[in-house]
Amino acid sequence: MVPHLQTALKGPLLDLERRILDATPRIERWFRLEWQEHTPPFYCSVDLRNAGFKIAPIDTNLFPAGFDLLSREMLPLAVQAAMAAIEKYCPDARNLLLIPQRGATDPAYLTHLARLASVLRQTGLHVRFGNLDAARGESVMIELPDGGSLRLEPLVRQGRRLGLDGFDPCSILLNDDLATGEPAILDGLHEQVLLPPLHAGWRTRRKSNHVAAYAAVSKRFAKLIDVDPWLIGPAHVSVAPANLLTGEGEARLVRSVDTVLRQVRAKYRELRIRETPFVVLKPDAGSHGADVVTLRSTADVRALPHDARLRLSAGADDDGAVGILVQEGVHTMESVEGASSEPVVYMVDRFVVGGYYRTHARRNRDESLDAPGGRIVPLPFDSSCLMPDASAGPEAGANRFYAYGVIARLALLAAAIELEQTDPDQSLYG
Amino acid sequence: MVPHLQTALKGPLLDLERRILDATPRIERWFRLEWQEHTPPFYCSVDLRNAGFKIAPIDTNLFPAGFDLLSREMLPLAVQAAMAAIEKYCPDARNLLLIPQRGATDPAYLTHLARLASVLRQTGLHVRFGNLDAARGESVMIELPDGGSLRLEPLVRQGRRLGLDGFDPCSILLNDDLATGEPAILDGLHEQVLLPPLHAGWRTRRKSNHVAAYAAVSKRFAKLIDVDPWLIGPAHVSVAPANLLTGEGEARLVRSVDTVLRQVRAKYRELRIRETPFVVLKPDAGSHGADVVTLRSTADVRALPHDARLRLSAGADDDGAVGILVQEGVHTMESVEGASSEPVVYMVDRFVVGGYYRTHARRNRDESLDAPGGRIVPLPFDSSCLMPDASAGPEAGANRFYAYGVIARLALLAAAIELEQTDPDQSLYG
Repeated sequence: MVPHLQTALKGPLLDLERRILDATPRIERWFRLEWQEHTPPFYCSVDLRNAGFKIAPIDTNLFPAGFDLLSREMLPLAVQAAMAAIEKYCPDARNLLLIPQRGATDPAYLTHLARLASVLRQTGLHVRFGNLDAARGESVMIELPDGGSLRLEPLVRQGRRLGLDGFDPCSILLNDDLATGEPAILDGLHEQVLLPPLHAGWRTRRKSNHVAAYAAVSKRFAKLIDVDPWLIGPAHVSVAPANLLTGEGEARLVRSVDTVLRQVRAKYRELRIRETPFVVLKPDAGSHGADVVTLRSTADVRALPHDARLRLSAGADDDGAVGILVQEGVHTMESVEGASSEPVVYMVDRFVVGGYYRTHARRNRDESLDAPGGRIVPLPFDSSCLMPDASAGPEAGANRFYAYGVIARLALLAAAIELEQTDPDQSLYG
Repeated sequence: MVPHLQTALKGPLLDLERRILDATPRIERWFRLEWQEHTPPFYCSVDLRNAGFKIAPIDTNLFPAGFDLLSREMLPLAVQAAMAAIEKYCPDARNLLLIPQRGATDPAYLTHLARLASVLRQTGLHVRFGNLDAARGESVMIELPDGGSLRLEPLVRQGRRLGLDGFDPCSILLNDDLATGEPAILDGLHEQVLLPPLHAGWRTRRKSNHVAAYAAVSKRFAKLIDVDPWLIGPAHVSVAPANLLTGEGEARLVRSVDTVLRQVRAKYRELRIRETPFVVLKPDAGSHGADVVTLRSTADVRALPHDARLRLSAGADDDGAVGILVQEGVHTMESVEGASSEPVVYMVDRFVVGGYYRTHARRNRDESLDAPGGRIVPLPFDSSCLMPDASAGPEAGANRFYAYGVIARLALLAAAIELEQTDPDQSLYG
């Protein structure tokens, strides 16, 4: 189920969106059956792009911030979804330990934390905050912009259990993406549920695994609704580690860029799309939107400036080599007040619970919008249209957003499968 | 979880409401554990009364109509809740058969049906309507007030399965309260899930069982939050069948009315409540609000007019005797535009999904409002207050409504336990 939000894009629905609407009961049953087989991550946000001819997820975040940006009307949905999740992991849970990002002092982030905690409390949990920052041995009270405050307490590890002084949680919800490493204090917690698991953190996670899982999921889904899978995902090639600073292995990267550009050009010709194809390079490991580099030709690879090479190599191994994901670039056709925009869809368990638009006035529609200077436009409920309705006109934002919720859930399902496939303990999946 | 609605009552929160708010995480965990033990009915609506000193459920409807009266913003909650229910009963369900009230031609009721079906379709189900009315052997197309239409199809029974021509459902959702009897065509459907079960229908159901289950549930809950159980439910006595037309057994009824009035007077004295106690008589079997009779003294029993005796005896046995529930009358302090009002809270599975106010300009605050001439005021979302918040002032409607959602869920839990206790197949409950 997808709640009803407004979209920034007012044009007619794509043929793709129409097909998704027409197949609603079939799609919802398909998801229902998939969730019998796969367990969704506890929470997830997905960045989408609607190019006017295709809709694709471009980032699947397993440690979402921004719960404060969801519209207030949507929070009961988040609570209901969190209840379903908690019942699954720990039905008699009384305490939940929430572990924020390390060194979190950004007021917006703290407001998100407070909001997330208020959603979780409403499911019948006592929520307290554990401090991953080993340097701080004492409790820290942090003032919130709204006048409230938030206490960060030192973590206490006892044997295979993690908690706080006088607080023994059943579940631990991680909101740090572990990009800076997996702290020893989180290791070997077999008696408690760690959500999401350690291998969802960016120290372990690889974009190539996610896009491979997404390719498989989207292929099955495309067959279900009889569309070309290319219409719901970016073409991609994963490049084995290359050293962008010495140039070692760069030829592989050039060939991969060429492969993706050729695929996209062929599709553009087939569908008479008058856009300039482009690709984005992303480090296979690493969580930052700022690491993304946009290219239009193979010549651009050789001409990559030094600072871009440095950014892409941030997570390089000891030899200086880094795996690169070459992904078809997807333009965004959406704009809010003239600024390029992309919808970000939030899910808790298997349910879409809200979203917002990320906009960036100084970025083009073929650039990453997840960059300094961007801003956020919360998506209001579309009270004029209660549920996707195939009989409604193309101006019905709810209809467009239903399709977005479907594509975001495909990325969620891909993340579920990715986490199964990359779980160090494969004995769990018979 | 309870969504955020506005209440008609603007005064300060009762001490009871404050206690409920303060205990939110404990209450939600308590419900979470109860729902591990008991399965909620598929859907339910509960009529509540807030007397200014107590909040009590006065009717628990297991075949709710009025889904069209829930505000549109709430529908995603209903869909999400229905998804959770469907996953439980029949995870791979493709088809659902919805059986409307017999002889349903009221446009408001048909609009409700269409809305209910749209919620269910959004969970990934094909929904069709089966006609209980044996007289109509062919499909009937009924026009809806909004211009749409609805096809009522003849039921087809094959062995232990029920369906329509070319339509074999996994689940059957009953929206007829079976007050006129249990049709043979619904009997012995062991291969399909009938929701709610046959014994939830008014041919079998007895109010005395429900209020007994509610008394037990509310006693446990009152202990949890440390309040007098009388503050969350009406006192009551169930009277063994009496013949109100011959007067046989009337003495028992008089004694019971006296017992309830004494209890209420004692409570009023203890809590310094300056209201006039009253009781309501309800036939133990039978679904109609119009059957309810209001009394202020035992003398009123003897003076009961003939038409009231006839109404109470509508479901009498062959000897003309009828079981009577004598229930403490609960005033309503709420009014909408000057008319006496009571909130009606809707639940799907274990979740509150919306509600509205029932108002009646020509009825007093100690009379049944479920009578001809009444009207409905949908409850809007309270967008100013996202979740019950103990720090918010008494003017926050969401806070009051949170308490209403809790009391309504107690009635839902009582219904779940009542249906277990009255199930003809007790082998299901080891």
